[in-house]
Amino acid sequence: MSLFRLDASIRVDGSTSRALADLVEDNWSKAAPGSSVTRRDLGLDPIPGDAWPTAVTAWPAPEAGRTAPQRSAVDLASSLVDELAGADAYLFAVPLYNFGVSQHFKTYVDLVMTDPRMAPDTASATSGKPGVLVTVQGGNYSPGTPKEGWDHATAWMRRILEDVWHVELDVVTCEFTLVGVNPALDAFTDLADRIRTDAEHQARERGRALGSHRVAA
Amino acid sequence: MSLFRLDASIRVDGSTSRALADLVEDNWSKAAPGSSVTRRDLGLDPIPGDAWPTAVTAWPAPEAGRTAPQRSAVDLASSLVDELAGADAYLFAVPLYNFGVSQHFKTYVDLVMTDPRMAPDTASATSGKPGVLVTVQGGNYSPGTPKEGWDHATAWMRRILEDVWHVELDVVTCEFTLVGVNPALDAFTDLADRIRTDAEHQARERGRALGSHRVAA
Repeated sequence: MSLFRLDASIRVDGSTSRALADLVEDNWSKAAPGSSVTRRDLGLDPIPGDAWPTAVTAWPAPEAGRTAPQRSAVDLASSLVDELAGADAYLFAVPLYNFGVSQHFKTYVDLVMTDPRMAPDTASATSGKPGVLVTVQGGNYSPGTPKEGWDHATAWMRRILEDVWHVELDVVTCEFTLVGVNPALDAFTDLADRIRTDAEHQARERGRALGSHRVAA
Repeated sequence: MSLFRLDASIRVDGSTSRALADLVEDNWSKAAPGSSVTRRDLGLDPIPGDAWPTAVTAWPAPEAGRTAPQRSAVDLASSLVDELAGADAYLFAVPLYNFGVSQHFKTYVDLVMTDPRMAPDTASATSGKPGVLVTVQGGNYSPGTPKEGWDHATAWMRRILEDVWHVELDVVTCEFTLVGVNPALDAFTDLADRIRTDAEHQARERGRALGSHRVAA
């Protein structure tokens, strides 16, 4: 039984997505004792920006005719998909940045999708497995807020993980993580506290469910 | 009078976004003769994935206390914003990839937004200037199609360029660029031809308008 955990926060100290993912992981471990965790830290160790275009150009070429950079890009894609294929469950901790998706997560997804095991309509490495997506936002883009609709990340992440990779996904969201950091948001301190407490509760619940799901399977 | 042109296609031969941007540029040049073009090719020369997190950590530090990688990341951000600040008009040619934004364009935007001249609410380097966004999609995610809503890129690009950078933006879109490449889409050959012809017409019009706008200004 194994969990694949991916982090995309560019911070370690003070990272809310990492803290919430720790809660998911801890509760997953308690529900599935003796299990192993494979980690991929995109925030601290980003995938190079030329890997995906190089892998794309590599595929039409016969294996023996590939250049060294092409072989290297294809091997990296393959090792990323090995991590996904070898896991029973997933934990993705990916913050929103600049109202959109983490550049490091998009770079990762693009490269992963060059591997034949993640071909459209099959995604055999990930299909049908359970996962939790933890995502956090510095502001608050919920319905009724002044910036409603400015979260352009979550819908794409769900699209890829649920509709393309066919992961059975639960999502834990925590808004207003910049409250306490940006003084302009001080009026929202109580609300931010409640949101954080609720997200922590959900993270524990989802972690337990993820562990139980695999125990039951 | 100068145009800043950015390309994010990972291909050169057969790139529809580059071909449409060429039409915009050609017609801009005719409307604004003697003008110069500054180019940034993210598809062929991606921004490194560690530049943005390094620049983020650099800003709180006093300039004299920055590490060499921090100085390098801040200098790169500054040179990108110099290109934006020095232009009178913009042309962004950015395809959709994997139902989302180009990883290379997101990486670029994140780094640009670390520079004080692109601070939220001001974006003094770009505010009020005219621009054209050319975007292309291999499939078709328009209303009424089976994958309606799968374009998760255009809304975010408009958000950044219009609402955050305050560019006066026109958008030229071309769907179904994989028709003729992917045999499963052969039934849409006539429709794809009409879409392409219409996009080319729009690209010429927008190029002329962009050039005239600056002549008139």
